[in-house]
Amino acid sequence: MVMSTRTEPETDGIRVAVSTVIFSLRRGARGDRPTIVLPLVRRTRDPHEGRWALPGGWLDRTEELDVAASRTLAETTGLAPSYLEQLYVFGDVGRSPGRVVSIVYWALLREGAKLPADAENVAWFDVADLPPLAFDHEHIVEYALWRLRNKVGYSRIAHGLLPDLFTLAELREVYEAILTRDLDPANFRRQVENSATLIPTERFRTGSHRPARLYRYDQDVELADRGPLPHPTAPFALSREARS
Amino acid sequence: MVMSTRTEPETDGIRVAVSTVIFSLRRGARGDRPTIVLPLVRRTRDPHEGRWALPGGWLDRTEELDVAASRTLAETTGLAPSYLEQLYVFGDVGRSPGRVVSIVYWALLREGAKLPADAENVAWFDVADLPPLAFDHEHIVEYALWRLRNKVGYSRIAHGLLPDLFTLAELREVYEAILTRDLDPANFRRQVENSATLIPTERFRTGSHRPARLYRYDQDVELADRGPLPHPTAPFALSREARS
Repeated sequence: MVMSTRTEPETDGIRVAVSTVIFSLRRGARGDRPTIVLPLVRRTRDPHEGRWALPGGWLDRTEELDVAASRTLAETTGLAPSYLEQLYVFGDVGRSPGRVVSIVYWALLREGAKLPADAENVAWFDVADLPPLAFDHEHIVEYALWRLRNKVGYSRIAHGLLPDLFTLAELREVYEAILTRDLDPANFRRQVENSATLIPTERFRTGSHRPARLYRYDQDVELADRGPLPHPTAPFALSREARS
Repeated sequence: MVMSTRTEPETDGIRVAVSTVIFSLRRGARGDRPTIVLPLVRRTRDPHEGRWALPGGWLDRTEELDVAASRTLAETTGLAPSYLEQLYVFGDVGRSPGRVVSIVYWALLREGAKLPADAENVAWFDVADLPPLAFDHEHIVEYALWRLRNKVGYSRIAHGLLPDLFTLAELREVYEAILTRDLDPANFRRQVENSATLIPTERFRTGSHRPARLYRYDQDVELADRGPLPHPTAPFALSREARS
């Protein structure tokens, strides 16, 4: 009998949490490469009280998963993402006291996003210079960065970090920040122009350099092909609306 | 206050299940393109009693996630995969009576794998000709197939469906079965030879056609780059061992 080895699993006492790794872009002084940053929340209770952790919380029994990701992100940081996608489930037995299965999302935020003025125990960190994190969150951030670096190669995901209008140099700097290496400006321009996903505008960035044309991205093109996955539910749809 | 909107979520009553979409290859009469098949389990209790469903079961509180996937697969079908990877979490509120969050794995099985002789309520189905499935499992299979078709383009994942030794024609047929289209034999041979992941042997497939060289794949090369994800735990490692 195939079934004869079955013993009844002990299914009680498993709790489901939702966390989000949300990346944004921080530009430094002119000429410096921008950096990828993410917000962390300082834990105010045990386990790991005082450590920095990913924004998150418990899944509500009546709540869709991506709604829980948006809600816990808003509650802990006040931020709303421009892109949100399920990353992976982290559920190792030893990752937390008790058994906690964490459904992790990763998200993008347009550059310049600010934390609310009254935000407590929340701060931005450069991904290259993180403090020790609670639980297995360092590993989770490492995996999310790997996914971001992979995905930037075959999707228009980088646009999730940009404002409505941007120059080609600003777009290139996003790629450079994600890939942590310099790209040849002429090659980059040619590739982007060939991809036909950007729409040139008649506006220009002026300043100390010669004027640079501003581009916007095509709102009809999805940032990434999600295949037959369901479309994000209301709260995230709203935040997509808000970005246009 | 950022925290002021927080209400205590109702976290009880959420159950965690693990299911696996496991693909294999079925060769028909000579000259026919092989097909992608998967095993389904007929449900013997409500909800959806009598419907076909993905192999799976409840996560045990003390069990790692991939171990649970291997265990429930073995218990319901007697099968052990040659490749196992987390696919996605399906947790829509309305997908099942009560609240069930299903952590879904996808897996590959080398061609010719057989169900145990005493397997009850388990059968192979052609992915192109599935019966109506329980819960949201049709949608899950559709997403797993999409992932398989994508991944075959940038990994050596097709090898997970092959025996130790195979001809280039047999390898091409695996790609054709996954992509559901014919590939040019000469182009295919050139691409595979350039990829340097196959090792030619001194053995040949003989039969009614002229002898065809047998190849094996390089055991030192991972089937797919998993990035910084943890390595699969014991039971799956054993089944990887078993395949070499």
